[in-house]
Amino acid sequence: MLSLYFYKTDFVEKKGVNLTPDDRGYYFGDGIYEVFRVYNGRIYEQQAHMDRLQKSAADVRITLPYSLEQIGDILTKLVQLNELVEGTIYMQITRGEAPRAHPFPAEATPVLLAYTTEVKRPLTTIQNGIHAISLEDIRWLRCDLKTLNLLPNVMAKQTALDRGVQEVVLHRNGTVTECSASNFMIVKDNVLYTHPANNLILHGITRAVVLRLANALHIEVQEVPFTLEQLQQADEAFITGTTVEVTPVLTVDGSPIGTGQSGPVTRKLQLEFERTFAL
Amino acid sequence: MLSLYFYKTDFVEKKGVNLTPDDRGYYFGDGIYEVFRVYNGRIYEQQAHMDRLQKSAADVRITLPYSLEQIGDILTKLVQLNELVEGTIYMQITRGEAPRAHPFPAEATPVLLAYTTEVKRPLTTIQNGIHAISLEDIRWLRCDLKTLNLLPNVMAKQTALDRGVQEVVLHRNGTVTECSASNFMIVKDNVLYTHPANNLILHGITRAVVLRLANALHIEVQEVPFTLEQLQQADEAFITGTTVEVTPVLTVDGSPIGTGQSGPVTRKLQLEFERTFAL
Repeated sequence: MLSLYFYKTDFVEKKGVNLTPDDRGYYFGDGIYEVFRVYNGRIYEQQAHMDRLQKSAADVRITLPYSLEQIGDILTKLVQLNELVEGTIYMQITRGEAPRAHPFPAEATPVLLAYTTEVKRPLTTIQNGIHAISLEDIRWLRCDLKTLNLLPNVMAKQTALDRGVQEVVLHRNGTVTECSASNFMIVKDNVLYTHPANNLILHGITRAVVLRLANALHIEVQEVPFTLEQLQQADEAFITGTTVEVTPVLTVDGSPIGTGQSGPVTRKLQLEFERTFAL
Repeated sequence: MLSLYFYKTDFVEKKGVNLTPDDRGYYFGDGIYEVFRVYNGRIYEQQAHMDRLQKSAADVRITLPYSLEQIGDILTKLVQLNELVEGTIYMQITRGEAPRAHPFPAEATPVLLAYTTEVKRPLTTIQNGIHAISLEDIRWLRCDLKTLNLLPNVMAKQTALDRGVQEVVLHRNGTVTECSASNFMIVKDNVLYTHPANNLILHGITRAVVLRLANALHIEVQEVPFTLEQLQQADEAFITGTTVEVTPVLTVDGSPIGTGQSGPVTRKLQLEFERTFAL
């Protein structure tokens, strides 16, 4: 099977991606990205990803090199060319190429790179859940922007793995924000709590989907900050994300959340998610 | 004149730098860097840069691909090959190449890239000073690490230029930290004040040099945080950095600092700096 990249203006093989170190992605992480999920050959929640891409671009002041419609066409074509049925599309756009200097270059053309990866749904962890630790959230104050400045997320994720768990629950002075590469939700007395979509968390596409599904299922939703203590008193906890979908979190810092098993509200949301998207 | 890069294992022309997008510098900004100043063909404060490089590497958990001594030899050779007399060496080390995933790759070899640039001393602004605006410091809480996650610095610098000034004075809730790509100092009643070298600022090499020179000149130094209000009441202000050296800041947010001219303590430090390094 082919596995083409889209780079700048063309569909090319990987060896055709001729990056220069002057690409501002390399020296500054000066770019934005999206990871799209593909189910059954179709892009999941494409419009929501495009809206977020547009917002990231506007706020970091990168002019998209193509219209959103053209980007959509490129991604659709890439999925077709690569015959992708189940997987992800990674796409990033950097500010362009110029000799290294902090100011925006006057004349650079933003560089779009995209490729696909076959990824199966992580059915085992979706069913059995994962374990997490808590960790101080030391990221910048625009976590709502999906940029290439991901070193704190990388460090946090690795810390989790080093401690034998799969994710970290980030907190600022005890207030839970999100995870290293997913959003975080708890259930207490049948109410779903998650951090409000402000500058301190990524506005996850699957987060929004799950809140929409919760509404449809008449589950009360409270987008309010909660603390690590409230988390420890919760009945259920789970993460949401493009690839993890809705994955239960059984323990945090070694303490079971609720029964320490996947809970009924989590399962209801998982079933509704599957019914809507993945089946 | 040649202008070679060092890339991975060899001195190569720029076209020989065959970056892959899998280099974690590109997707995550997962790397560290240093900018060395070269005066008269010699590397300025080499040991201090090497110490800081070692600390950045340790804290982001990148294993340097060469010993510090070998890196020193590479840089010295690069300066010689490129016949650099006055300029800078840019050097970065990324975590290595691997398919995109947040966790550290198991087997990746860190990638060293270095090149030189001819840069004259910015004598005009060193003599005449610059203007600045204040801006909220929204960076992460490990500003002491010199990493490739530089988007907030890039955005801040561009904001300054858009507003017709050369730098920003960053502050957290009114407490001054540093600038977008330099450290910041004020003088009040002949005492030199600058933010302590903790996690909120880069531990600038020239910052340390200037504090050392101040001590030698019997200028009292206070490494304590100060506010934007105290800045407005200061007698003098200046930035320090590898390329800007000691550059006076004449106004902040349009208000003159002291007389709005370069002050006597600043001039004394500039002269001592020149005498020691640049002449």
